Amino acid sequence: MSYARQLLDTYPRTFNLDAGVLAATTDAANDCAQACTSCADDDLSEPDVADLVKCIRLCLDCADVCAATVRVISRQTEYDATLTRPLLQACVTACRSSGDECERHAAHHEHCRVCAEACRRCEQACQQLLAAMEKATQAPAAAE
Amino acid sequence: MSYARQLLDTYPRTFNLDAGVLAATTDAANDCAQACTSCADDDLSEPDVADLVKCIRLCLDCADVCAATVRVISRQTEYDATLTRPLLQACVTACRSSGDECERHAAHHEHCRVCAEACRRCEQACQQLLAAMEKATQAPAAAE
Amino acid sequence: MSYARQLLDTYPRTFNLDAGVLAATTDAANDCAQACTSCADDDLSEPDVADLVKCIRLCLDCADVCAATVRVISRQTEYDATLTRPLLQACVTACRSSGDECERHAAHHEHCRVCAEACRRCEQACQQLLAAMEKATQAPAAAE
Amino acid sequence: MSYARQLLDTYPRTFNLDAGVLAATTDAANDCAQACTSCADDDLSEPDVADLVKCIRLCLDCADVCAATVRVISRQTEYDATLTRPLLQACVTACRSSGDECERHAAHHEHCRVCAEACRRCEQACQQLLAAMEKATQAPAAAE
Repeated sequence: MSYARQLLDTYPRTFNLDAGVLAATTDAANDCAQACTSCADDDLSEPDVADLVKCIRLCLDCADVCAATVRVISRQTEYDATLTRPLLQACVTACRSSGDECERHAAHHEHCRVCAEACRRCEQACQQLLAAMEKATQAPAAAE
Repeated sequence: MSYARQLLDTYPRTFNLDAGVLAATTDAANDCAQACTSCADDDLSEPDVADLVKCIRLCLDCADVCAATVRVISRQTEYDATLTRPLLQACVTACRSSGDECERHAAHHEHCRVCAEACRRCEQACQQLLAAMEKATQAPAAAE
Repeated sequence: MSYARQLLDTYPRTFNLDAGVLAATTDAANDCAQACTSCADDDLSEPDVADLVKCIRLCLDCADVCAATVRVISRQTEYDATLTRPLLQACVTACRSSGDECERHAAHHEHCRVCAEACRRCEQACQQLLAAMEKATQAPAAAE
Repeated sequence: MSYARQLLDTYPRTFNLDAGVLAATTDAANDCAQACTSCADDDLSEPDVADLVKCIRLCLDCADVCAATVRVISRQTEYDATLTRPLLQACVTACRSSGDECERHAAHHEHCRVCAEACRRCEQACQQLLAAMEKATQAPAAAE
């Protein structure tokens, strides 16, 4: 069990979000931030670096947005949907752009194939968390 | 003139955004990230720390979102509105929440008064950048 | 297998460091950054927050140093020992301070117990990486 | 007066460091993190990107180490020299490497000239802070 999940289980949170979904998103975003940092560095080592410029940029943006997302969703004892929602949306966008671009190079560069997988997983996890937030907002009674 | 502005002036950008607005937002977000980090630490030293818990949390979130915003808007040679827009919106929200809460403590804690000012300035700068982006998107002809 | 390890295996590195040790340190530092962010937030929710101020501060520092360490050691295609060494030493120190303080509260706060474990693991991983770097520097012939 | 300096003046610190030196280092590191992020992005847009790969990598490392340094030295209400010292040393090294490399390209790339200046200023500020820390440690009586 990841530390994110263990830590979520140690404390009562103010908002009724499934701990499994929240921990999975935290871990996926943390992994994705690292994968994008590493992939951008690998891109810089390739002989065709000039063709990978867009990939590098999108990976750098994705790493920074994922890192901020990890931080904010790790602070769950007081929860603010007005901040979490646009940040998760930014994270979905960053992961999609980075994942799409990495996929284009996946056949030639194994690091892009791995990074694309990390981006897809994070994109899906963020969308599941957004959906869980939406559901929790619509059914406040069930949350109690 | 800040480094952000000097650096914006060294390279042709792909998107027609006013360099002054962009540099001002970059500097305001960078300042705000630092101010929020410092204010949260000062809060932790106050005898009434228990009353400042919400302030600490909001400042920590604000610092992380501002830091990611600085990174992404500093990468202007290839510009992606679908990422920048929700991220700036998240930054506006984070600055507003943090600024509001700091303002509540401004009379008793000078560091909260200073931090609230940094948050307000960043919130306004992000909104001006969002407005400039909107305008640039609506008038693509003028952008050429 | 973590993304960090998968990505290390996709590209030839400039420095002869064992990929297992490097990936383990990357993952441990990434996990520790998240655990410390979460633990600091949990501390803020405790009724005895005034007794946890030192723990919060050390966890915040540890999260930031771990995050920078992950970034730098993820960029292994061109390796700079003069930067990596003091940064890993800073990370060891941050993890030890944070781990020691969390351990003091582990009996009363489960999140501190979990976080102390994440800090210990990261501290040990950084020390193993420092040792591996030392060995690789002393035996350049074996590195070829 | 920067927010960093204003905020340092609002609260009594635990360690006898000159507020001017501390605020100058905080601001210089924050500026340098932004300048390096921007310079790396500008490098990626240059037709000779393949010759700038080392510059990009060093700027990315420098940005991350500077950002962590800003965070840690902004938390001055409880001060830990065993962490601050190696981190500042890592920051000096990162700024020197990045500044040296940017200087090599300064004649051809204006953004490298500006970034080299930001790196030099941060390197010097960190060294002044290290010297001030050394002095404060050697003369504890004067600190009271």
